[in-house]
Amino acid sequence: MATRVAIVVAAGRGTRMGAPDKVLLPLAGRPALAWSLRAAAAAASVDAIVVVHGEHTGARIAALVRQMATTKPVRLVAGGDRRQDSVANGLAAAAVDLWATVVAVHDGARPLATPAMFDAVLDAAERHGAAIVATPIVDTLKRVADGMVVETVPRDGLWAAQTPQAFSVGRLADALDEGDRRGLTVTDEAALFEALGWPVAIAPGDPANLKLTHPGDIPVLEALLWAREGRG
Amino acid sequence: MATRVAIVVAAGRGTRMGAPDKVLLPLAGRPALAWSLRAAAAAASVDAIVVVHGEHTGARIAALVRQMATTKPVRLVAGGDRRQDSVANGLAAAAVDLWATVVAVHDGARPLATPAMFDAVLDAAERHGAAIVATPIVDTLKRVADGMVVETVPRDGLWAAQTPQAFSVGRLADALDEGDRRGLTVTDEAALFEALGWPVAIAPGDPANLKLTHPGDIPVLEALLWAREGRG
Repeated sequence: MATRVAIVVAAGRGTRMGAPDKVLLPLAGRPALAWSLRAAAAAASVDAIVVVHGEHTGARIAALVRQMATTKPVRLVAGGDRRQDSVANGLAAAAVDLWATVVAVHDGARPLATPAMFDAVLDAAERHGAAIVATPIVDTLKRVADGMVVETVPRDGLWAAQTPQAFSVGRLADALDEGDRRGLTVTDEAALFEALGWPVAIAPGDPANLKLTHPGDIPVLEALLWAREGRG
Repeated sequence: MATRVAIVVAAGRGTRMGAPDKVLLPLAGRPALAWSLRAAAAAASVDAIVVVHGEHTGARIAALVRQMATTKPVRLVAGGDRRQDSVANGLAAAAVDLWATVVAVHDGARPLATPAMFDAVLDAAERHGAAIVATPIVDTLKRVADGMVVETVPRDGLWAAQTPQAFSVGRLADALDEGDRRGLTVTDEAALFEALGWPVAIAPGDPANLKLTHPGDIPVLEALLWAREGRG
Protein backbone atom coordinates (compact mmCIF):
# COMPACT_ATOMS: atom_id res chain seq x y z
CA MET A 1 0.00 0.00 0.00
CA ALA A 2 1.40 3.37 -0.99
CA THR A 3 1.87 5.80 1.87
CA ARG A 4 2.24 9.41 0.82
CA VAL A 5 3.84 11.89 3.19
CA ALA A 6 4.19 15.66 2.78
CA ILE A 7 7.53 17.00 4.07
CA VAL A 8 7.05 20.70 4.78
CA VAL A 9 10.42 22.43 5.07
CA ALA A 10 10.43 25.37 7.49
CA ALA A 11 14.13 25.44 8.38
CA GLY A 12 15.43 28.17 6.03
CA ARG A 13 17.49 31.07 7.33
CA GLY A 14 15.39 33.73 5.56
CA THR A 15 18.54 35.58 4.53
CA ARG A 16 16.90 37.48 1.63
CA MET A 17 13.93 38.25 3.89
CA GLY A 18 16.06 39.58 6.74
CA ALA A 19 14.01 37.32 9.06
CA PRO A 20 15.28 33.92 10.26
CA ASP A 21 11.73 32.94 11.21
CA LYS A 22 10.08 34.07 7.97
CA VAL A 23 7.74 31.07 7.85
CA LEU A 24 6.19 32.36 11.07
CA LEU A 25 5.50 35.86 9.75
CA PRO A 26 1.76 36.56 9.74
CA LEU A 27 0.10 36.63 6.32
CA ALA A 28 -3.60 37.44 6.10
CA GLY A 29 -4.03 36.70 9.81
CA ARG A 30 -2.07 33.42 10.05
CA PRO A 31 1.62 32.44 9.96
CA ALA A 32 2.82 31.64 6.43
CA LEU A 33 3.57 28.08 7.56
CA ALA A 34 0.01 27.56 8.80
CA TRP A 35 -1.30 28.13 5.27
CA SER A 36 1.28 25.74 3.80
CA LEU A 37 0.42 23.04 6.34
CA ARG A 38 -3.30 23.46 5.77
CA ALA A 39 -2.87 22.85 2.04
CA ALA A 40 -0.83 19.69 2.67
CA ALA A 41 -3.30 18.38 5.27
CA ALA A 42 -6.28 19.05 3.00
CA ALA A 43 -4.86 17.05 0.08
CA ALA A 44 -6.68 13.72 -0.25
CA SER A 45 -3.45 12.09 -1.47
CA VAL A 46 -1.46 13.06 1.66
CA ASP A 47 -1.59 10.45 4.45
CA ALA A 48 0.75 12.14 6.96
CA ILE A 49 2.94 15.22 7.37
CA VAL A 50 6.52 15.84 8.52
CA VAL A 51 7.42 19.43 9.44
CA VAL A 52 11.13 20.35 9.44
CA HIS A 53 11.82 23.24 11.84
CA GLY A 54 14.79 25.61 12.12
CA GLU A 55 17.34 26.03 14.86
CA HIS A 56 15.34 28.56 16.89
CA THR A 57 11.78 27.88 15.72
CA GLY A 58 11.11 24.39 17.13
CA ALA A 59 8.91 25.44 20.05
CA ARG A 60 6.81 27.91 18.06
CA ILE A 61 6.34 25.48 15.18
CA ALA A 62 5.40 22.73 17.65
CA ALA A 63 2.70 25.02 19.06
CA LEU A 64 1.44 25.72 15.54
CA VAL A 65 1.30 22.00 14.74
CA ARG A 66 -0.72 21.31 17.91
CA GLN A 67 -3.33 23.81 16.70
CA MET A 68 -3.69 22.18 13.27
CA ALA A 69 -7.19 20.98 12.47
CA THR A 70 -6.22 17.59 11.06
CA THR A 71 -6.55 13.96 12.11
CA LYS A 72 -3.54 12.98 9.97
CA PRO A 73 -0.30 12.08 11.79
CA VAL A 74 2.15 15.01 12.00
CA ARG A 75 5.83 14.60 12.99
CA LEU A 76 8.23 17.43 13.81
CA VAL A 77 11.98 17.10 13.12
CA ALA A 78 14.93 19.51 13.25
CA GLY A 79 16.49 20.78 10.02
CA GLY A 80 20.11 20.71 8.87
CA ASP A 81 22.68 23.12 7.48
CA ARG A 82 21.54 23.15 3.88
CA ARG A 83 18.09 22.74 2.40
CA GLN A 84 18.95 19.23 1.22
CA ASP A 85 20.12 18.30 4.75
CA SER A 86 16.75 19.43 6.11
CA VAL A 87 14.98 17.36 3.46
CA ALA A 88 17.16 14.35 4.39
CA ASN A 89 16.08 14.70 8.03
CA GLY A 90 12.45 14.97 6.98
CA LEU A 91 12.81 11.99 4.69
CA ALA A 92 14.25 9.83 7.48
CA ALA A 93 11.23 10.58 9.67
CA ALA A 94 8.82 10.00 6.78
CA ALA A 95 10.41 6.69 5.80
CA VAL A 96 11.14 5.23 9.24
CA ASP A 97 8.31 6.53 11.43
CA LEU A 98 5.59 6.85 8.82
CA TRP A 99 6.42 4.09 6.30
CA ALA A 100 6.32 6.53 3.39
CA THR A 101 6.70 5.16 -0.15
CA VAL A 102 6.46 8.56 -1.86
CA VAL A 103 6.98 12.05 -0.41
CA ALA A 104 5.99 15.56 -1.49
CA VAL A 105 8.59 18.12 -0.39
CA HIS A 106 7.06 21.58 0.08
CA ASP A 107 8.48 24.99 1.07
CA GLY A 108 6.83 26.26 4.24
CA ALA A 109 7.19 29.71 2.69
CA ARG A 110 4.80 28.91 -0.20
CA PRO A 111 1.43 29.47 1.47
CA LEU A 112 -0.56 29.47 -1.77
CA ALA A 113 0.04 25.90 -2.86
CA THR A 114 -3.23 24.00 -3.23
CA PRO A 115 -4.31 20.49 -2.20
CA ALA A 116 -4.76 19.78 -5.93
CA MET A 117 -1.05 20.49 -6.51
CA PHE A 118 -0.10 17.89 -3.90
CA ASP A 119 -2.45 15.37 -5.52
CA ALA A 120 -1.11 16.04 -9.03
CA VAL A 121 2.58 15.99 -8.16
CA LEU A 122 2.31 12.85 -5.97
CA ASP A 123 0.42 11.09 -8.75
CA ALA A 124 3.08 12.07 -11.31
CA ALA A 125 5.89 10.98 -8.97
CA GLU A 126 4.30 7.54 -8.60
CA ARG A 127 4.35 7.18 -12.38
CA HIS A 128 7.78 8.74 -13.12
CA GLY A 129 9.76 8.51 -9.85
CA ALA A 130 9.92 12.30 -9.48
CA ALA A 131 7.78 15.32 -10.40
CA ILE A 132 7.73 19.05 -9.72
CA VAL A 133 5.09 21.74 -9.89
CA ALA A 134 6.24 24.40 -12.36
CA THR A 135 4.99 27.24 -14.59
CA PRO A 136 6.36 28.47 -17.92
CA ILE A 137 8.45 31.65 -17.81
CA VAL A 138 6.48 34.49 -19.46
CA ASP A 139 8.76 37.46 -18.74
CA THR A 140 11.79 38.24 -20.86
CA LEU A 141 14.89 37.08 -18.93
CA LYS A 142 17.99 39.26 -18.60
CA ARG A 143 21.44 38.49 -17.29
CA VAL A 144 22.40 41.43 -15.04
CA ALA A 145 25.74 42.51 -13.58
CA ASP A 146 26.46 45.65 -11.55
CA GLY A 147 22.98 47.04 -12.17
CA MET A 148 23.28 46.83 -15.97
CA VAL A 149 21.84 44.32 -18.43
CA VAL A 150 24.42 42.00 -19.98
CA GLU A 151 22.17 40.02 -22.33
CA THR A 152 18.73 38.57 -22.96
CA VAL A 153 18.51 34.86 -22.11
CA PRO A 154 16.19 32.84 -24.42
CA ARG A 155 13.16 31.86 -22.36
CA ASP A 156 11.94 29.11 -24.71
CA GLY A 157 11.44 25.90 -22.77
CA LEU A 158 12.25 27.56 -19.43
CA TRP A 159 9.93 26.94 -16.49
CA ALA A 160 9.98 28.27 -12.94
CA ALA A 161 10.08 25.40 -10.45
CA GLN A 162 7.74 25.71 -7.49
CA THR A 163 6.89 23.28 -4.72
CA PRO A 164 5.48 20.75 -3.86
CA GLN A 165 7.98 18.42 -5.54
CA ALA A 166 7.37 14.69 -5.11
CA PHE A 167 9.73 11.72 -5.20
CA SER A 168 9.72 7.99 -4.63
CA VAL A 169 11.31 7.49 -1.21
CA GLY A 170 13.98 5.05 -2.34
CA ARG A 171 15.10 7.24 -5.20
CA LEU A 172 15.17 10.43 -3.10
CA ALA A 173 17.30 8.70 -0.44
CA ASP A 174 19.73 7.51 -3.10
CA ALA A 175 19.79 10.95 -4.76
CA LEU A 176 20.56 12.71 -1.46
CA ASP A 177 23.35 10.22 -0.69
CA GLU A 178 24.84 10.54 -4.14
CA GLY A 179 24.59 14.35 -3.91
CA ASP A 180 26.64 14.20 -0.69
CA ARG A 181 29.21 11.89 -2.28
CA ARG A 182 29.59 14.27 -5.24
CA GLY A 183 29.55 17.39 -3.01
CA LEU A 184 26.52 18.90 -4.79
CA THR A 185 24.57 21.77 -3.20
CA VAL A 186 21.23 22.35 -4.91
CA THR A 187 18.27 24.76 -4.68
CA ASP A 188 15.77 21.93 -5.08
CA GLU A 189 15.90 18.16 -4.80
CA ALA A 190 14.84 17.62 -8.41
CA ALA A 191 18.28 18.95 -9.39
CA LEU A 192 19.86 15.89 -7.76
CA PHE A 193 17.68 13.61 -9.91
CA GLU A 194 18.70 15.58 -13.00
CA ALA A 195 22.38 15.28 -12.05
CA LEU A 196 21.93 11.50 -11.85
CA GLY A 197 20.08 11.35 -15.17
CA TRP A 198 16.80 10.23 -13.56
CA PRO A 199 13.49 11.46 -15.00
CA VAL A 200 11.60 14.37 -13.41
CA ALA A 201 8.07 15.08 -14.68
CA ILE A 202 6.19 18.41 -14.67
CA ALA A 203 2.82 18.98 -12.98
CA PRO A 204 1.00 22.24 -13.71
CA GLY A 205 1.70 25.03 -11.22
CA ASP A 206 -0.10 28.29 -10.68
CA PRO A 207 1.18 31.86 -11.08
CA ALA A 208 -0.26 32.55 -7.61
CA ASN A 209 1.93 29.89 -5.93
CA LEU A 210 4.55 32.47 -4.99
CA LYS A 211 7.27 32.10 -2.37
CA LEU A 212 7.83 34.48 0.52
CA THR A 213 11.40 35.55 -0.28
CA HIS A 214 11.68 39.35 0.03
CA PRO A 215 9.74 41.81 2.23
CA GLY A 216 8.09 43.13 -0.97
CA ASP A 217 6.36 39.76 -1.38
CA ILE A 218 4.26 40.24 1.78
CA PRO A 219 1.53 42.51 0.35
CA VAL A 220 1.30 40.33 -2.76
CA LEU A 221 0.88 37.10 -0.80
CA GLU A 222 -1.60 38.71 1.59
CA ALA A 223 -3.75 40.00 -1.26
CA LEU A 224 -3.85 36.56 -2.83
CA LEU A 225 -4.64 34.81 0.47
CA TRP A 226 -7.42 37.24 1.36
CA ALA A 227 -8.93 36.86 -2.10
CA ARG A 228 -8.84 33.08 -1.87
CA GLU A 229 -10.47 33.09 1.56
CA GLY A 230 -13.16 35.47 0.33
CA ARG A 231 -13.92 33.12 -2.52
CA GLY A 232 -13.69 29.94 -0.41
CA MET B 1 13.50 70.84 -22.09
CA ALA B 2 13.05 67.10 -21.70
CA THR B 3 9.65 65.82 -22.78
CA ARG B 4 8.79 62.39 -21.45
CA VAL B 5 6.11 60.35 -23.16
CA ALA B 6 4.64 57.00 -22.08
CA ILE B 7 3.94 54.66 -25.01
CA VAL B 8 1.37 52.13 -23.83
CA VAL B 9 1.29 49.15 -26.19
CA ALA B 10 -2.15 47.53 -26.48
CA ALA B 11 -1.79 45.91 -29.91
CA GLY B 12 -0.87 42.32 -28.95
CA ARG B 13 -2.73 39.34 -30.35
CA GLY B 14 -3.26 37.71 -26.96
CA THR B 15 -2.41 34.30 -28.43
CA ARG B 16 -1.54 32.66 -25.10
CA MET B 17 -4.64 34.25 -23.56
CA GLY B 18 -6.99 33.02 -26.29
CA ALA B 19 -8.35 36.58 -26.47
CA PRO B 20 -7.21 39.05 -29.15
CA ASP B 21 -8.56 41.94 -27.05
CA LYS B 22 -7.02 40.82 -23.76
CA VAL B 23 -6.13 44.38 -22.73
CA LEU B 24 -9.86 45.13 -22.68
CA LEU B 25 -10.77 42.22 -20.38
CA PRO B 26 -12.26 43.52 -17.13
CA LEU B 27 -10.03 43.21 -14.05
CA ALA B 28 -11.38 44.36 -10.69
CA GLY B 29 -14.13 46.33 -12.43
CA ARG B 30 -12.08 48.08 -15.14
CA PRO B 31 -10.39 47.00 -18.40
CA ALA B 32 -6.76 45.92 -17.86
CA LEU B 33 -5.66 48.78 -20.13
CA ALA B 34 -7.49 51.38 -18.01
CA TRP B 35 -5.32 50.47 -15.02
CA SER B 36 -2.15 50.64 -17.12
CA LEU B 37 -3.11 54.04 -18.51
CA ARG B 38 -3.98 55.38 -15.07
CA ALA B 39 -0.52 54.49 -13.76
CA ALA B 40 1.17 56.22 -16.70
CA ALA B 41 -1.02 59.33 -16.40
CA ALA B 42 -0.43 59.56 -12.64
CA ALA B 43 3.37 59.55 -12.97
CA ALA B 44 4.78 63.04 -12.35
CA SER B 45 7.55 62.36 -14.88
CA VAL B 46 5.14 61.57 -17.74
CA ASP B 47 4.15 64.61 -19.82
CA ALA B 48 1.98 62.87 -22.43
CA ILE B 49 0.77 59.42 -23.49
CA VAL B 50 0.62 57.50 -26.76
CA VAL B 51 -1.65 54.45 -26.85
CA VAL B 52 -0.99 51.86 -29.57
CA HIS B 53 -4.16 49.92 -30.44
CA GLY B 54 -4.69 46.62 -32.24
CA GLU B 55 -6.35 45.87 -35.55
CA HIS B 56 -9.86 45.47 -34.16
CA THR B 57 -9.67 47.43 -30.91
CA GLY B 58 -9.25 51.02 -32.14
CA ALA B 59 -12.82 52.19 -31.49
CA ARG B 60 -13.09 50.61 -28.03
CA ILE B 61 -9.68 51.90 -26.96
CA ALA B 62 -10.57 55.37 -28.27
CA ALA B 63 -13.68 55.31 -26.07
CA LEU B 64 -11.56 54.27 -23.08
CA VAL B 65 -9.09 57.09 -23.72
CA ARG B 66 -11.93 59.65 -23.87
CA GLN B 67 -13.00 58.56 -20.38
CA MET B 68 -9.50 58.98 -18.88
CA ALA B 69 -9.32 61.43 -16.01
CA THR B 70 -6.17 63.23 -17.14
CA THR B 71 -5.30 66.66 -18.51
CA LYS B 72 -2.18 65.29 -20.19
CA PRO B 73 -2.20 64.97 -24.00
CA VAL B 74 -3.10 61.45 -25.20
CA ARG B 75 -2.58 60.25 -28.80
CA LEU B 76 -3.93 57.03 -30.30
CA VAL B 77 -2.07 55.20 -33.10
CA ALA B 78 -2.49 51.83 -34.81
CA GLY B 79 -0.04 49.01 -34.09
CA GLY B 80 2.03 46.89 -36.48
CA ASP B 81 2.73 43.23 -37.12
CA ARG B 82 5.27 42.62 -34.38
CA ARG B 83 5.62 44.23 -30.98
CA GLN B 84 8.60 46.25 -32.16
CA ASP B 85 6.58 47.54 -35.16
CA SER B 86 3.88 48.73 -32.75
CA VAL B 87 6.53 50.46 -30.65
CA ALA B 88 7.95 52.09 -33.80
CA ASN B 89 4.50 53.50 -34.63
CA GLY B 90 4.11 54.77 -31.08
CA LEU B 91 7.57 56.27 -31.15
CA ALA B 92 6.85 58.17 -34.38
CA ALA B 93 3.77 59.76 -32.76
CA ALA B 94 5.67 60.53 -29.56
CA ALA B 95 8.61 62.10 -31.37
CA VAL B 96 6.80 64.00 -34.13
CA ASP B 97 3.51 65.05 -32.52
CA LEU B 98 4.64 65.33 -28.92
CA TRP B 99 8.32 66.34 -29.20
CA ALA B 100 9.41 63.49 -26.92
CA THR B 101 13.07 63.29 -25.87
CA VAL B 102 12.65 60.15 -23.79
CA VAL B 103 9.89 57.52 -23.86
CA ALA B 104 8.68 54.84 -21.45
CA VAL B 105 7.30 51.81 -23.31
CA HIS B 106 4.71 49.94 -21.25
CA ASP B 107 2.63 46.80 -21.84
CA GLY B 108 -1.08 47.60 -21.68
CA ALA B 109 -1.46 44.13 -20.15
CA ARG B 110 0.57 45.07 -17.02
CA PRO B 111 -2.10 46.81 -14.95
CA LEU B 112 -0.09 46.79 -11.71
CA ALA B 113 2.78 49.03 -12.78
CA THR B 114 3.04 52.08 -10.52
CA PRO B 115 3.65 55.78 -11.23
CA ALA B 116 6.89 55.41 -9.22
CA MET B 117 8.13 52.80 -11.72
CA PHE B 118 7.61 55.25 -14.60
CA ASP B 119 9.48 57.94 -12.65
CA ALA B 120 12.39 55.63 -11.79
CA VAL B 121 12.82 54.11 -15.24
CA LEU B 122 12.56 57.45 -17.06
CA ASP B 123 15.12 58.96 -14.69
CA ALA B 124 17.51 56.02 -15.26
CA ALA B 125 17.02 56.23 -19.05
CA GLU B 126 17.97 59.92 -19.01
CA ARG B 127 21.22 58.99 -17.28
CA HIS B 128 22.08 55.79 -19.20
CA GLY B 129 20.16 56.01 -22.51
CA ALA B 130 17.99 53.00 -21.66
CA ALA B 131 16.56 51.35 -18.54
CA ILE B 132 14.12 48.57 -17.70
CA VAL B 133 12.09 47.66 -14.65
CA ALA B 134 13.10 44.16 -13.53
CA THR B 135 13.12 41.81 -10.52
CA PRO B 136 15.61 39.08 -9.58
CA ILE B 137 14.55 35.50 -10.35
CA VAL B 138 13.86 33.70 -7.06
CA ASP B 139 12.49 30.38 -8.34
CA THR B 140 14.75 27.58 -9.51
CA LEU B 141 14.71 27.56 -13.33
CA LYS B 142 14.29 24.34 -15.31
CA ARG B 143 14.66 23.64 -19.01
CA VAL B 144 11.68 21.47 -19.97
CA ALA B 145 10.97 19.36 -23.07
CA ASP B 146 7.96 17.09 -23.68
CA GLY B 147 6.71 17.53 -20.10
CA MET B 148 9.98 16.38 -18.53
CA VAL B 149 12.80 18.37 -16.92
CA VAL B 150 16.01 18.46 -18.97
CA GLU B 151 18.21 20.46 -16.61
CA THR B 152 18.39 23.18 -13.95
CA VAL B 153 19.51 26.54 -15.37
CA PRO B 154 21.67 28.61 -12.97
CA ARG B 155 19.57 31.58 -11.82
CA ASP B 156 22.49 33.66 -10.51
CA GLY B 157 22.38 37.11 -12.10
CA LEU B 158 19.09 36.40 -13.89
CA TRP B 159 16.30 38.97 -13.68
CA ALA B 160 12.77 38.99 -15.08
CA ALA B 161 12.24 42.03 -17.28
CA GLN B 162 8.99 43.88 -16.77
CA THR B 163 7.71 47.14 -18.21
CA PRO B 164 7.83 50.15 -18.26
CA GLN B 165 11.13 50.25 -20.17
CA ALA B 166 12.48 53.71 -21.04
CA PHE B 167 14.75 54.91 -23.83
CA SER B 168 16.18 58.10 -25.24
CA VAL B 169 14.15 58.79 -28.38
CA GLY B 170 17.11 59.07 -30.74
CA ARG B 171 18.66 55.84 -29.55
CA LEU B 172 15.39 53.90 -29.67
CA ALA B 173 14.74 55.07 -33.25
CA ASP B 174 18.25 53.98 -34.26
CA ALA B 175 17.87 50.64 -32.43
CA LEU B 176 14.54 49.88 -34.16
CA ASP B 177 16.05 50.74 -37.57
CA GLU B 178 19.12 48.63 -36.95
CA GLY B 179 16.94 45.77 -35.72
CA ASP B 180 15.04 45.89 -39.03
CA ARG B 181 18.28 45.94 -41.02
CA ARG B 182 19.56 42.91 -39.13
CA GLY B 183 16.19 41.12 -39.25
CA LEU B 184 15.94 40.87 -35.43
CA THR B 185 12.61 40.03 -33.77
CA VAL B 186 12.68 40.70 -30.02
CA THR B 187 10.39 40.28 -27.00
CA ASP B 188 11.37 43.68 -25.63
CA GLU B 189 13.09 46.75 -27.05
CA ALA B 190 15.95 46.59 -24.55
CA ALA B 191 17.12 43.46 -26.44
CA LEU B 192 17.83 45.68 -29.47
CA PHE B 193 20.04 47.93 -27.34
CA GLU B 194 21.86 44.85 -26.02
CA ALA B 195 22.38 43.55 -29.58
CA LEU B 196 23.99 46.89 -30.47
CA GLY B 197 26.18 46.90 -27.36
CA TRP B 198 24.42 49.95 -25.86
CA PRO B 199 23.96 50.16 -22.07
CA VAL B 200 20.64 49.25 -20.45
CA ALA B 201 20.23 50.05 -16.73
CA ILE B 202 17.97 48.31 -14.18
CA ALA B 203 15.29 50.07 -12.12
CA PRO B 204 13.69 48.10 -9.27
CA GLY B 205 10.49 46.29 -10.24
CA ASP B 206 7.87 44.72 -8.03
CA PRO B 207 6.78 41.07 -7.77
CA ALA B 208 3.18 42.33 -8.11
CA ASN B 209 3.83 43.91 -11.54
CA LEU B 210 2.57 40.83 -13.33
CA LYS B 211 1.46 40.58 -16.95
CA LEU B 212 -1.90 39.27 -18.11
CA THR B 213 -0.70 36.37 -20.27
CA HIS B 214 -2.76 33.26 -19.48
CA PRO B 215 -6.39 32.93 -18.24
CA GLY B 216 -4.97 31.69 -14.91
CA ASP B 217 -3.47 35.14 -14.35
CA ILE B 218 -6.90 36.81 -14.07
CA PRO B 219 -7.73 35.88 -10.42
CA VAL B 220 -4.17 36.78 -9.37
CA LEU B 221 -4.27 40.22 -11.01
CA GLU B 222 -7.77 40.89 -9.68
CA ALA B 223 -6.76 40.03 -6.11
CA LEU B 224 -3.79 42.38 -6.33
CA LEU B 225 -5.82 45.22 -7.86
CA TRP B 226 -8.62 44.93 -5.31
CA ALA B 227 -6.09 44.89 -2.46
CA ARG B 228 -4.35 47.97 -3.83
CA GLU B 229 -7.62 49.84 -4.18
CA GLY B 230 -8.62 48.89 -0.64
CA ARG B 231 -5.34 50.28 0.64
CA GLY B 232 -5.36 53.39 -1.58
